[in-house]
Amino acid sequence: MAGEEQKKSGGGGKKKEVKKETGLGLSFTKDENFGEWYSEVIVNSEMIEYYDISGCYILRPWAMSIWEIMQTFFDAEIKKMKVKNCYFPLFVSPGVLQKEKDHIEGFAPEVAWVTKSGESDLEVPIAIRPTSETVMYPYYSKWIRGHRDLPLKLNQWCNVVRWEFSNPTPFIRSREFLWQEGHTAFATKEEADAEVLQILELYRCIYEEFLAIPVTKGRKSELEKFAGGLYTTSVEAFIPNTGRGIQGATSHCLGQNFAKMFEINYENEKGEKAMVWQNSWAYSTRTIGVMVMVHGDNKGLVLPPKVAALQVIVIPVPYKDADTQGIFDACAATVATLSEAGIRAEADLRENYSPGWKYSNWEMKGVPLRVEIGPRDLANNQVRVVRRDNGEKTDISRVFLVEQVKGMLDKIQHNLFDVAKQKRDACFEVVKTWDGFC
Amino acid sequence: MAGEEQKKSGGGGKKKEVKKETGLGLSFTKDENFGEWYSEVIVNSEMIEYYDISGCYILRPWAMSIWEIMQTFFDAEIKKMKVKNCYFPLFVSPGVLQKEKDHIEGFAPEVAWVTKSGESDLEVPIAIRPTSETVMYPYYSKWIRGHRDLPLKLNQWCNVVRWEFSNPTPFIRSREFLWQEGHTAFATKEEADAEVLQILELYRCIYEEFLAIPVTKGRKSELEKFAGGLYTTSVEAFIPNTGRGIQGATSHCLGQNFAKMFEINYENEKGEKAMVWQNSWAYSTRTIGVMVMVHGDNKGLVLPPKVAALQVIVIPVPYKDADTQGIFDACAATVATLSEAGIRAEADLRENYSPGWKYSNWEMKGVPLRVEIGPRDLANNQVRVVRRDNGEKTDISRVFLVEQVKGMLDKIQHNLFDVAKQKRDACFEVVKTWDGFC
Repeated sequence: MAGEEQKKSGGGGKKKEVKKETGLGLSFTKDENFGEWYSEVIVNSEMIEYYDISGCYILRPWAMSIWEIMQTFFDAEIKKMKVKNCYFPLFVSPGVLQKEKDHIEGFAPEVAWVTKSGESDLEVPIAIRPTSETVMYPYYSKWIRGHRDLPLKLNQWCNVVRWEFSNPTPFIRSREFLWQEGHTAFATKEEADAEVLQILELYRCIYEEFLAIPVTKGRKSELEKFAGGLYTTSVEAFIPNTGRGIQGATSHCLGQNFAKMFEINYENEKGEKAMVWQNSWAYSTRTIGVMVMVHGDNKGLVLPPKVAALQVIVIPVPYKDADTQGIFDACAATVATLSEAGIRAEADLRENYSPGWKYSNWEMKGVPLRVEIGPRDLANNQVRVVRRDNGEKTDISRVFLVEQVKGMLDKIQHNLFDVAKQKRDACFEVVKTWDGFC
Repeated sequence: MAGEEQKKSGGGGKKKEVKKETGLGLSFTKDENFGEWYSEVIVNSEMIEYYDISGCYILRPWAMSIWEIMQTFFDAEIKKMKVKNCYFPLFVSPGVLQKEKDHIEGFAPEVAWVTKSGESDLEVPIAIRPTSETVMYPYYSKWIRGHRDLPLKLNQWCNVVRWEFSNPTPFIRSREFLWQEGHTAFATKEEADAEVLQILELYRCIYEEFLAIPVTKGRKSELEKFAGGLYTTSVEAFIPNTGRGIQGATSHCLGQNFAKMFEINYENEKGEKAMVWQNSWAYSTRTIGVMVMVHGDNKGLVLPPKVAALQVIVIPVPYKDADTQGIFDACAATVATLSEAGIRAEADLRENYSPGWKYSNWEMKGVPLRVEIGPRDLANNQVRVVRRDNGEKTDISRVFLVEQVKGMLDKIQHNLFDVAKQKRDACFEVVKTWDGFC
């Protein structure tokens, strides 16, 4: 599975107008036309808007909120590991970019070049970073002098640009994307090796515990490893509909290759000249696309509760002659109770939209739990709770609201993972003969 | 004062090697050569590294941590105002960029253009955003249909590029910089006007309450307002050494001008076609440069406690024959006590550096409080605390450590503001005659 990049997924490369209004259903099923289904889901759920430059996409708040939740987690974890955030420039001068030959060969065809400012030609064209190894390491060489300067552990949250021409797909393969890139330098290979795995474990955690997607940790082959590095590890997810693996995030040991090229030397404790061992590691907004592909269904997006900006949507269901005000008040009180308990909840009190329209709308947006409050619920001091993942409906007394909702959100998180794992495992076959393998 | 941009400050445009080792003093005083002093302080304190592309600078962790603290505050505040984060592409197509004439005239000379990817010329050159009005508003036109879609309030944290050729200065005027840009649309001018001031107040808060810098809120003249907008408000700081004001952050009411150009219309409650009122507002990493210029002194950086990644540095001062282990343990215990109380504290236990060297080093980096622990302090169960802002030394019993340190950090925060205000006000003169004004 390792290394099987998702080359054809989505098929949403061409800019397309999705005709249907947001929240009002999909024209394609997931099994029928996976690519069109994906494009419709991300647009109709208001995660993505297609942009007038091919391969560039607008991340709307519904997508950004997922990115921010993962970022908060990961940023805190790497800070515990004493990694510090910094910001290096977007631009690279050509000389520096080309210093490491294998590395530049891997990226050269995708590099975007700035050649003009205003009406004037620049003296020398300037590249936009496709990744920042060559941007950063000349300064690592300057900053690292003695063994006390090690380890050096930096990270940045930024945009990078890879001007690819083959099948751009929102989140999965875009010309500009957001990511974090960590760049660390150590005195010993042992420390570098250990960090590679520690970071890989954080990436597993993002996929399995936040996005509810099972991944396989592995080491890439020599052919697939990072250009210029020593070895590459990755977490690999699986998209049942395409039958393909997809690289989820990578943690590279760069060995001493970049250190040689950029002369990152230091004086060790014995007073001898030594060379550092380096790692780099990254995950990107691709994570969000994988999540959509794995969990989404024919009603739209399905969000794992841990990354959902909104975990519970409360919808009033007033019948003719019902106590509308009482129902609206109960909705507001329910949101207040849930919010106080740290659950991300809102009520959809918009008038002129039917409850049915609202159900479809929030199903399209993938909110994990829907709470309905109608006259009978009001009378019985209960609410009706509907799970987005499996449609299960339960009536809950408002007395036990918080604990029951918490329990259900937990169940949804685990169920999404289990279902994804079953689907993945069902696609694996143990092959015993060469014919079977072919 | 309004609009007096800091055009000549710093003088650090040319890439320069600062010869002195980090933390070992400055070659220039602030009064003697303000520009050179500024360059040395930001490099020696490890905030900035000069980069091999002119006008681009590396933000090291010591600078990024300040940015992150302000970001955490501001992001939470705008979220309370129901502003949501998003991310629009870095690239703009030429047609869209040029749609608003005044706007593009204001920015055209500074726009960087991508014309190649790999070895191939692009069919059409693509601009890098100098700001995102024209990037975003075509989509506002698409998303805003009815009055229920208003207000629309989006923000993004991103990099922008303005390829200026005059006097680039780290933080203050750089070709790429980090900022937030908020873009909002309302049904009425009243709502837009109110938000302009609400955001301006948050900017005042960042300067006065976080960075301890007095600012003046004001409205720009017609000549100085944002290109294409209706009116511009700003907070203006003052740099005593240059005798000049500097624009700190801007909150613009765009009126309906962009709405006209980009056809951002909606159906109002009466079913009539109406046009939105828009704002945009931004603050950037310039804030950090203003902070350095206002508070820094001849020993280096001076950080207001509220934005200092490290508020207290604890330094062991063992004499010959002293109980070194006891002193080191007391340092660790002091850090633990302060950290538990939410104070950002660390100990500098490095060997082979003298206490004196460490004092200079952390003074250069601007840490608000230094705690020294020597044999006599150990014997008396006390610590010596030294303020960075005024050098004041106090012996504190370890029994009252937390409350005393908290009190001193508060005092430093306020004192920095007061001193800056006095210096600013001393530069103001009430002019009563025309001759005096000239």
